[in-house]
Amino acid sequence: MSELESRIRCKSLLSKVVKVEETIQYFKDGMNLGWSGFTPAGYPKAVPIALADHVEKNNLQGKLRFNLFIGASVGAETENRWAQLDMIDRRWPYQTGKDIAKGINEGRIRMGDKHLSLFAQDLGYGFYTKDTPTGKLDLAIIEVSAITEDGGLVPTSSCGVIPEILMICDKVIVEVNTGQPSFEGMHDIIVPGTPPNRQVFNITKADSRIGTTYCPCDPNKIIAIVESKHLDKGRAFAEQDDTSEAIANHIMDFFQYEVKCGRLPKNLLPIQSGVGSIANAVVGGLAKGPFSNLTVYTEVLQDTMLDLFDSGKLDAASSCSLSLSENPGFPRFFANFEKYAPKITLRPLSISNAPEPIRRLGCIAMNTPVEFDIYAHANSTLVGGTRMINGLGGSGDFLRNAFLSIMHTPSTRPSKTDPHGITCVVPKAPHIDHTEHDLDVLVTEQGLADLRGLAPKDRAQMLIDKCVHPEYKPIMQEYFDMAKKECLSKGIGHEPQLFDRCFKMQMNLAKHGTMKIKDWNVPDIV
Amino acid sequence: MSELESRIRCKSLLSKVVKVEETIQYFKDGMNLGWSGFTPAGYPKAVPIALADHVEKNNLQGKLRFNLFIGASVGAETENRWAQLDMIDRRWPYQTGKDIAKGINEGRIRMGDKHLSLFAQDLGYGFYTKDTPTGKLDLAIIEVSAITEDGGLVPTSSCGVIPEILMICDKVIVEVNTGQPSFEGMHDIIVPGTPPNRQVFNITKADSRIGTTYCPCDPNKIIAIVESKHLDKGRAFAEQDDTSEAIANHIMDFFQYEVKCGRLPKNLLPIQSGVGSIANAVVGGLAKGPFSNLTVYTEVLQDTMLDLFDSGKLDAASSCSLSLSENPGFPRFFANFEKYAPKITLRPLSISNAPEPIRRLGCIAMNTPVEFDIYAHANSTLVGGTRMINGLGGSGDFLRNAFLSIMHTPSTRPSKTDPHGITCVVPKAPHIDHTEHDLDVLVTEQGLADLRGLAPKDRAQMLIDKCVHPEYKPIMQEYFDMAKKECLSKGIGHEPQLFDRCFKMQMNLAKHGTMKIKDWNVPDIV
Repeated sequence: MSELESRIRCKSLLSKVVKVEETIQYFKDGMNLGWSGFTPAGYPKAVPIALADHVEKNNLQGKLRFNLFIGASVGAETENRWAQLDMIDRRWPYQTGKDIAKGINEGRIRMGDKHLSLFAQDLGYGFYTKDTPTGKLDLAIIEVSAITEDGGLVPTSSCGVIPEILMICDKVIVEVNTGQPSFEGMHDIIVPGTPPNRQVFNITKADSRIGTTYCPCDPNKIIAIVESKHLDKGRAFAEQDDTSEAIANHIMDFFQYEVKCGRLPKNLLPIQSGVGSIANAVVGGLAKGPFSNLTVYTEVLQDTMLDLFDSGKLDAASSCSLSLSENPGFPRFFANFEKYAPKITLRPLSISNAPEPIRRLGCIAMNTPVEFDIYAHANSTLVGGTRMINGLGGSGDFLRNAFLSIMHTPSTRPSKTDPHGITCVVPKAPHIDHTEHDLDVLVTEQGLADLRGLAPKDRAQMLIDKCVHPEYKPIMQEYFDMAKKECLSKGIGHEPQLFDRCFKMQMNLAKHGTMKIKDWNVPDIV
Repeated sequence: MSELESRIRCKSLLSKVVKVEETIQYFKDGMNLGWSGFTPAGYPKAVPIALADHVEKNNLQGKLRFNLFIGASVGAETENRWAQLDMIDRRWPYQTGKDIAKGINEGRIRMGDKHLSLFAQDLGYGFYTKDTPTGKLDLAIIEVSAITEDGGLVPTSSCGVIPEILMICDKVIVEVNTGQPSFEGMHDIIVPGTPPNRQVFNITKADSRIGTTYCPCDPNKIIAIVESKHLDKGRAFAEQDDTSEAIANHIMDFFQYEVKCGRLPKNLLPIQSGVGSIANAVVGGLAKGPFSNLTVYTEVLQDTMLDLFDSGKLDAASSCSLSLSENPGFPRFFANFEKYAPKITLRPLSISNAPEPIRRLGCIAMNTPVEFDIYAHANSTLVGGTRMINGLGGSGDFLRNAFLSIMHTPSTRPSKTDPHGITCVVPKAPHIDHTEHDLDVLVTEQGLADLRGLAPKDRAQMLIDKCVHPEYKPIMQEYFDMAKKECLSKGIGHEPQLFDRCFKMQMNLAKHGTMKIKDWNVPDIV
């Protein structure tokens, strides 16, 4: 029996096995597609790559365009290549890749982002397909480790929105990935009901199990099965730097203080940590730090999490995806499968990011924004307020529902002409994804501002004092003092802003390459 | 046995009964106080009024200032009078009253607002009192219907944050309200644990009961009991108008369409409806409409809800407060107590507004903002972006977690010089409480925009087409076209904005009394 045959335990489905080229016929221009995957983990590769090859070979650019609904971003060799070949019309709810971002910001690709937990349920409720003739997705492509005796789909390195896709799709192409070991046993899946019949998600610890290790699927829905040997193209490890280290140290000090005051247990509370160099430094800080018996409840596990397991300080991790690097992450994971796998639970997005378990467990959420403002509104998605980077992701699911909501960023970033040309603490965020009502603690390498219980003007002063880079402190203080003076004297000063100047720093950057403005009172705008 | 004695079933506490004047001694300048109450319902009145009289009589204005932590606003005769007498330093998380708003916007009162479900839990976790010597509230004042044999507190017309106050306060003054019948039996209370020991909130229907009808309280905490005969000063019924009627009709049509498409059950899903004339019109529309066996899961029940019960179409209502008008609301309620009371469940704020039951039940959330913008960001709190009205309330708890998130507003409001001088649909909201990632449907009397699944620029065009007032349509379309042209040509146009002009309408209003700007390209700002 071949590896493929042994993975397909529902034997009636063996007749559905085809060569990948034979799936091309199912794709028509304008279709709504659902893919498995969440970050470059668990996404279909063989079929999307074959379809891209087909488009390229036959000069079909712009003639086969699709609407893509996937848990989050997927590997660049699939969605970004599709963007290069003008194969994407709509894209929800997140993406990664230079070409897809270009298409979005030039208006050729219609992207929308939503809190990931809401994206998952709204997809299952049919909200994204409500204007189609059937109200359903036209076609799904799901990567699996195996198919159970009853046709149940065993995911690979992520669960994404597989349950919701199957709720609203009657035609499924399955990619059985035999290029890597099976992940069977690591998943905990329930198919959420639709209100008023939605279940209690009875998760009371990070490693609670409430479902099955596969996603039930009517075998009649499966129209084709292909074998895939493609590996997840996980991102390489981000380097740590002094700024990230300093931020992580502030956070470790804060945790220790909170434990001392009795507001956090000694083993903290389940950690959600985003992606990037600061998140890596924080996880690194935990691996070296004084806390043990930690747990993680998050949406993405990256390579550093293996270090935290190896430190002996991490008892369990729950996530939507195991997004390790192609090398060394996955080889390291598979070489120690018996050690890591029993401590990891992979859940569908609708559960990993649901407010219900996040609040109940009391997660500590930590994410990096593009920038935040003096009143603690944060921009996570649009550089300069208009240019999409990747999307919102699950930051709002975790930050809104956490026990402690923390955002961290370097205080400045370089512009083309000035190593500190961009301040990440601004008078007013030009786009807002997380509001002042959502965030507890903001951190830069300059310091940590614990904003809990502070009124807006007290928050602003603390942020200027603790988080703003020294080169921007006088500039920000001058704006704040000026705004207070003008607004309070008119009796409109709960949260002072000057609407003729609040974006002057951003306009100065566009015009002069730095946000260090010379004079707040000189007109510098149209 | 007097009425008071019969209400105090824990007989050892009878010795704590004092005259209201005798409680004055417990109040010291700078104290952190927790009150019962949520909206003008269930708040202490006798003690706060006596303390205000004391301050007034003895010219202690500014010498006895307190930090007030209450579930939401309370009656003007208490918190607003305290503001008049300069008795408030900090105020969380909501307020109502001309004088308290004035104090906030002139910088004398430090107010903060947070999603109410978060306020409740953060209060219980000690986040607001973390910088005090004890980490606790100094004193609580709780209005009750009765005290049980074990000292349990039976609330009156609201539950507010009584459980959280008792978690972090060791000294409680109780007001037993004998001026109205007891509400005993209507409440469903659990005291939420602190993570990692937080319970499942096993609410699967609007009328699920998961707790007790009283809030447990160590009798030793009760330092004084006073009798009160003050009635809740509930607001009068808001008049309905043609605009509200038109909005309600759009919503009723939308519900019917969604039922027809199979996306909503015939009896809809649990309704959350805010306060004000549009909310009243919507509830009125439901009372006349084609839907029956409705349920309500909300934070405030107002007089119109009695009409909905009387229509026979409402099976059950869950709320944090029963905020009826002093007349005719409460007399009507008490005259038909046996009819209404069994269908109403009053819950603590931490349960009524918890994301967990709101998502599970799949509420339909409807709230009125100050304004929203073309990309569907909404301002609920700060007029002109800086002046606090009342606060955020629970709008975010419901809108973020609802099955359908709906906001409704008149398309315009009058300015001093122009009956349509203010447009409620703007290029960019000057303050953002709810983001584009939170809202599904926006409605004005002009029409309803179903934004589900639309990318930002498609949302903007639909909002301009369906919701903007005819006098503002060309102005808004010109801005949007101009912004698209400038941003897309630079490849930064996912969500086009022009930062030198996006607030020009607001500045025009301040300067010229109307938001109808004459020319987008003429410099009109500092």
